Amino acid sequence: MFEKVEVDESYIRIPKERLERFYIDVLTALSVPEEDARIVADNLILADLRGIESHGAQRFVRYFRAIKKGSVNLKPQMRIERESDVHALLNGDGGLGQPVSYRAMMLAIEKARKNLFGVVGVRNSNHFGIAGHYSLLAVERDLIGISMTTTRPLVAPTWGIERVVGTNPVAIGIPVKDMPPFLLDMATSVVSTGKFELYRRKNKRIPEGWGIDGEGKVTTNPDKVLREGAELPLGGLGELLGGHKGYGLSLAIDAFCGVLTNATWSKWVKNTSERDSNVGHMFIAINIDAFMPVEDFKERMRRMIEDVKRSRAMEGKRIWYPGEKGALTAETRKEIGIPVYKEVLDELNGFARETGVEELP
Amino acid sequence: MFEKVEVDESYIRIPKERLERFYIDVLTALSVPEEDARIVADNLILADLRGIESHGAQRFVRYFRAIKKGSVNLKPQMRIERESDVHALLNGDGGLGQPVSYRAMMLAIEKARKNLFGVVGVRNSNHFGIAGHYSLLAVERDLIGISMTTTRPLVAPTWGIERVVGTNPVAIGIPVKDMPPFLLDMATSVVSTGKFELYRRKNKRIPEGWGIDGEGKVTTNPDKVLREGAELPLGGLGELLGGHKGYGLSLAIDAFCGVLTNATWSKWVKNTSERDSNVGHMFIAINIDAFMPVEDFKERMRRMIEDVKRSRAMEGKRIWYPGEKGALTAETRKEIGIPVYKEVLDELNGFARETGVEELP
Repeated sequence: MFEKVEVDESYIRIPKERLERFYIDVLTALSVPEEDARIVADNLILADLRGIESHGAQRFVRYFRAIKKGSVNLKPQMRIERESDVHALLNGDGGLGQPVSYRAMMLAIEKARKNLFGVVGVRNSNHFGIAGHYSLLAVERDLIGISMTTTRPLVAPTWGIERVVGTNPVAIGIPVKDMPPFLLDMATSVVSTGKFELYRRKNKRIPEGWGIDGEGKVTTNPDKVLREGAELPLGGLGELLGGHKGYGLSLAIDAFCGVLTNATWSKWVKNTSERDSNVGHMFIAINIDAFMPVEDFKERMRRMIEDVKRSRAMEGKRIWYPGEKGALTAETRKEIGIPVYKEVLDELNGFARETGVEELP
Repeated sequence: MFEKVEVDESYIRIPKERLERFYIDVLTALSVPEEDARIVADNLILADLRGIESHGAQRFVRYFRAIKKGSVNLKPQMRIERESDVHALLNGDGGLGQPVSYRAMMLAIEKARKNLFGVVGVRNSNHFGIAGHYSLLAVERDLIGISMTTTRPLVAPTWGIERVVGTNPVAIGIPVKDMPPFLLDMATSVVSTGKFELYRRKNKRIPEGWGIDGEGKVTTNPDKVLREGAELPLGGLGELLGGHKGYGLSLAIDAFCGVLTNATWSKWVKNTSERDSNVGHMFIAINIDAFMPVEDFKERMRRMIEDVKRSRAMEGKRIWYPGEKGALTAETRKEIGIPVYKEVLDELNGFARETGVEELP
């Protein structure tokens, strides 16, 4: 089994199905339509199954509060504002990011099946959870899927101090023969914001190179980064190790998801708990038949990956490919349950009492 | 003026037009058709103008030798192997990478103008020079342009020691109102191979984090990286600072340019001086009209960039956007000439004598 079962008193394991039921019950009690509640639950569960804990149960706490505050449109009238055989621009009408994004990717998939490519931009949306969820919708249908989004500004540009750039993640999903799909799901910052929150909660120092304080100095204090400083782009501080590349990728994603979609770029993106957060996304589906028979392609992907995995590793190390660890973690967690931190569990059960839903064990 | 004119005896400055003439004369003397020679010259000049010296005069040395060796098909019969309104797969027939890529991007542009998107994959090509050249062809026509390519294997995967992954660059070009275009042109390794060569030639140590030796240890000796070790992916060694992200991006580019195009992935890509190097590329052109009027978009890009540039900078520093430095350097070099290292100049003049072309000053 991939995951070591540590004796750690700080979390308990909850079966995936139980947690799924809980999310759907709480969301529907808050007047989220059941179909939409299921999509949000799918995204949260997938994050926790694959080990992206910042976007699982921990993240639900924020969604719950945003919905309670009334800042999300729970009955959005999504509209297609522009459309062709291979693309569309969707207005999410301030709805929850997950159902809006699910529909946008399904539209991209439909177009790719009929006309080889599907590119769907979205404006007026909210935080969409993990990007990989939507890319996998394409992969499950033997297509290549790409998803990306703007986020709130949390990252400093190269040589800058202020948070004016997003962590703007991108997920690239590609089917592979007889192996878990290739799934690169990455923030364009060194690490995602959830990692800083995790280190702060555990009272641990962060490694040098993740973030800066309010004066632009590298700090190992996660609280300083979160309160007054900024995260660093992939490649780190300055240009020496390529920080301008991570910063550039983040700006490119702002251009696609924020500028081109007529949403807004990260500097002006707001939290889900504020009205009109105006998050923008982009979803791309590619029909492999455009280039070669899909089975040939999947076999070629397998060979490419094996070529890399079979190369010489550092002592005591193993070479992984993107998505492999997540898939193994998911297999294990489907069996032994999803770990939920006790503080998070307490909050979730507070929500259960508030909405009259059965508490988690 | 942007570039400091240093008193440095190691290079001399040659006017852009003179160098351009030289490349075209030498290439046509080697039986490269004039139209193709011009495209190769354009790429080399653009690289040197924008300050990407690894891909300018220094790179011509390799092309010359490869052509002399007979490993490049100078009269390729390029064929379209698959095609739709919005895409094509092109067989480059082993020709020089630049003319093949120029035609592929122009085909993508034509499709994007007519049908909003153009995606053109290429197989059976060679080293294509700087990726930004092709993206700018789209930008000059008010489209978004994306170019990427496989390369020879020079990078170690995360936790690996062997060179099995490419430096696989990508260039994203986007038009901006009243400002130089956004142009992110980056290798997915920490730095490009040319940087290691430059440090070795100057007998300088490389910074920690650029490369490893043959045992997988971080080294500051560029010669060790080039001879026995490997370059590191963007994000560096291991996963702590996101090395798995640079590695993942590189594999994704292999999937698009190598696997999907029916070329080969980086592990099997060869040098231009070997026959059938089978480099693969991908070119994408996006018609901005698909989403909004192009003038509105360019104005929005300008505002997005200004938001970032006007944010607080570290002391004594300035915030740049991708492509800005390159554009400023090009402006200056158009006036004062392109710096060419004396050793490189000696080699170039050796080629001049070999082909009966007038020597450079």
